[in-house]
Amino acid sequence: MGRGVLPAGALVATADDLGFTRGDGVFDATRICTDVDGNSTIDHLNRHFDRFDRSIAGVGGRAIDRQAWTALIEEAMAAWDVPGEAVCKIMYTNGQETQGGEPTECLTVTEMSAAAMAQRAGVKVAALNRGYAHDLFYEVPWLLGRVKTLAYAVNVAAGREAKARGADDVLFCSSDGYALEGPTSALIVWRDGVLHTTPLEGTGILDSITQALLFERATEAGYDCRYTLMRPGDVVAADAAWLASSVRGTVPILEVDGKPVSQDPELTRTFAAMVGF
Amino acid sequence: MGRGVLPAGALVATADDLGFTRGDGVFDATRICTDVDGNSTIDHLNRHFDRFDRSIAGVGGRAIDRQAWTALIEEAMAAWDVPGEAVCKIMYTNGQETQGGEPTECLTVTEMSAAAMAQRAGVKVAALNRGYAHDLFYEVPWLLGRVKTLAYAVNVAAGREAKARGADDVLFCSSDGYALEGPTSALIVWRDGVLHTTPLEGTGILDSITQALLFERATEAGYDCRYTLMRPGDVVAADAAWLASSVRGTVPILEVDGKPVSQDPELTRTFAAMVGF
Repeated sequence: MGRGVLPAGALVATADDLGFTRGDGVFDATRICTDVDGNSTIDHLNRHFDRFDRSIAGVGGRAIDRQAWTALIEEAMAAWDVPGEAVCKIMYTNGQETQGGEPTECLTVTEMSAAAMAQRAGVKVAALNRGYAHDLFYEVPWLLGRVKTLAYAVNVAAGREAKARGADDVLFCSSDGYALEGPTSALIVWRDGVLHTTPLEGTGILDSITQALLFERATEAGYDCRYTLMRPGDVVAADAAWLASSVRGTVPILEVDGKPVSQDPELTRTFAAMVGF
Repeated sequence: MGRGVLPAGALVATADDLGFTRGDGVFDATRICTDVDGNSTIDHLNRHFDRFDRSIAGVGGRAIDRQAWTALIEEAMAAWDVPGEAVCKIMYTNGQETQGGEPTECLTVTEMSAAAMAQRAGVKVAALNRGYAHDLFYEVPWLLGRVKTLAYAVNVAAGREAKARGADDVLFCSSDGYALEGPTSALIVWRDGVLHTTPLEGTGILDSITQALLFERATEAGYDCRYTLMRPGDVVAADAAWLASSVRGTVPILEVDGKPVSQDPELTRTFAAMVGF
């Protein structure tokens, strides 16, 4: 935590940093909004710190120094003056392989991509088999379920596969046919007046902060919110469905494998507002 | 490919390098042997370049410039003068996320660890469920089977789990109970006069250069070599078994989950010699 704000393109990792060589580290990401005067705010930082700490524990790391991290993020936000939205990514690795000492901790602030902005209008998803049974993580707790590691190569590969299939995003499914989550988002399904998402237990999916926020606020507003195992066919048959993430908010799913999903523009606006988008 | 030999601890990656942020890159590793006069040789470089290129293609990258890589490795070997064994790790990432341009390519040379040296005498392994069915990769070809990505967090986590169980290394098993490979090694089993290893097709395991070399030379020497699906119980019941890798050679498996495996010291010496250890 010693170098402060660096220009884009500055080098931060050694060739033997375990985050670089093995993905042996974790990250979290949230949104920064900056007004025309260059004043920035950051979304739900404490919730992201909580999840970051859970992820770090998952790779055998130590709890973060929240005061130092908060100071670094404030410094980065003070230096950031691009009006609009940006993504703040916080990262922690188990440090240098040959030094065996201190973790590497760093963050980036990056302008929200045009692709992320465009996808808020809706995404076509490809349902892809992630290879794990829906209840695998009961049996194999060490397999980094719920840990947001830097080892996202499968997520990137899934994105490439989705693109090759003409889709914008991915709906990861279990090897036994359940819809789980997106590579960077949670699944939200609206059907017969009930709001559903994938259960966390056993599935290994990430606990989504945007989904949790939506369920809290929707419950307060009187919606019936439940954790339910669903199949891709349930998403297609839904009255509406979304992918929820800290970067894009609640994005309507337009199609699953080319099959159209019903849209509910009013509910889409309601839910976006609930999660601050 | 522009900076030449750097001191240990030099920074090589930006905070938005896709290799760092997502493990969206690949590597390969082989052994360097250095004599007392500081002259170094490197093992099977072309075979490692071949596999490196296959891995790079697996993450959508472009073929390497072998001439430039060979020159860089020669430069590194000329600068390396520590007598004994070292590991040369070559790495390729899809470059900076926000630049979208050139890949990052780098290598490290690191003295062979005392742990790796000690493990050549034999390892106790824990059989751990990797979560994938043994034939998953027929159905899900995009899932990075056979690709040596930088996203090794699960392999690191498996190592932590093995250590917690009192073992030195891991025998990854499929969710349907087949023994597959180690996190950085291939499984070799000797039983009733036949040498077995795990089939590549469908299993997603890495094609091991040391296993291939052993099978080529053992076949020449008249051994019957076969690709066979085995269970952890078959390893326990074997006449001898090894984990094969470019860094440690052919390491005898002493135990699987605390159950002793028969040893054949003469064959262990024969096979080690065949693969140059």
